[in-house]
Amino acid sequence: MYTVYGDILSGNCYKVKLLMAHLELPHEWVHVDILQGESRTPEFLAMNPAGEIPTLRLPDGEYLAQSNAILHYLAEGSRWLPNERLARARVLQWLFFEQYSHEPYIAVTRYIAKYLGLPAEREEEFRAKQAGGHRALAVMEQRLADYDYLVGTGPTIADIALYAYTHVAHEGGFNLTGYPAVNRWLRRMREQPRHVTMEQFTG
Amino acid sequence: MYTVYGDILSGNCYKVKLLMAHLELPHEWVHVDILQGESRTPEFLAMNPAGEIPTLRLPDGEYLAQSNAILHYLAEGSRWLPNERLARARVLQWLFFEQYSHEPYIAVTRYIAKYLGLPAEREEEFRAKQAGGHRALAVMEQRLADYDYLVGTGPTIADIALYAYTHVAHEGGFNLTGYPAVNRWLRRMREQPRHVTMEQFTG
Repeated sequence: MYTVYGDILSGNCYKVKLLMAHLELPHEWVHVDILQGESRTPEFLAMNPAGEIPTLRLPDGEYLAQSNAILHYLAEGSRWLPNERLARARVLQWLFFEQYSHEPYIAVTRYIAKYLGLPAEREEEFRAKQAGGHRALAVMEQRLADYDYLVGTGPTIADIALYAYTHVAHEGGFNLTGYPAVNRWLRRMREQPRHVTMEQFTG
Repeated sequence: MYTVYGDILSGNCYKVKLLMAHLELPHEWVHVDILQGESRTPEFLAMNPAGEIPTLRLPDGEYLAQSNAILHYLAEGSRWLPNERLARARVLQWLFFEQYSHEPYIAVTRYIAKYLGLPAEREEEFRAKQAGGHRALAVMEQRLADYDYLVGTGPTIADIALYAYTHVAHEGGFNLTGYPAVNRWLRRMREQPRHVTMEQFTG
């Protein structure tokens, strides 16, 4: 059985939960509270030297880090990761876009607001990151204005990865009203069979 | 034939050049000067809506963005990308680490210093990013203290991706003296057959 070390309210962890629900993969979920330093203990660092969540423990005891590498590993052989060479590369293109051009703005502003309560000393950073988040949303809007999904004709792990923080972008201060195609795509993702929400797993 | 749109002094572009040299892939290289806005023209944005280099044009006219997605695409079927499922996932783990935890510190400080000439208004950002760069180098040092390469027993695109900015980290203000395993690995990468340097392609 798989074990996921994570926090369901973190988009990077939730994306793993969401894919595992779609794939119907049995797993144990171990909650890690990063604000309490639980990802920096010697025990956690032995599993993942970078001290980050999510971390996946494979049935054979190996550990895998980086949310999008975990998605790619788990989706292998399923309809969530196309087999064709260029389609696979396009999935990766969006996964790297997510980690480089989307997450550092939309996830980080949400973290500052939701987890830290928007402390005065981080207000400037919060504001400075709004433009980058809107740049990322505009790139998504452009693609989704013409296509139902980010790659090909059905949903892939590229959609799961980008759904994770986009669907809670308002918690980072982003108003999505100006992105109609993104909103239609968010609904399309919510309506997938076996979709799960963050709230389902919080007390 | 492939066409690469890029700037050889950008590590993200150089990593594509380096892999293409190892794979002996014929290609045309089109220089793009981002400081002159050449990646924000309508023509360039039609190839890559994110306006980033490198961008790869495939022989059939399709375009692919994101340096590490390009590496993964080109390396398919070669010894630079293992076939085994967990090994592939570990390569991706390092590629995402590179874009999330290494490049935003080591590449960005180098950009501020080398391209922009360390202007006063970015000195604070330059200094603030030093700690993150050293955290990334420490993670690499820990792995490379015990292994010759980042994944498995031979070099992969994970090594190419991380070599690109690590070998010029001093230009971002990083002193690598405290990372002996990283230094041995850098030498090992330089000594690979068909290795090319940034300087080979600059006037």
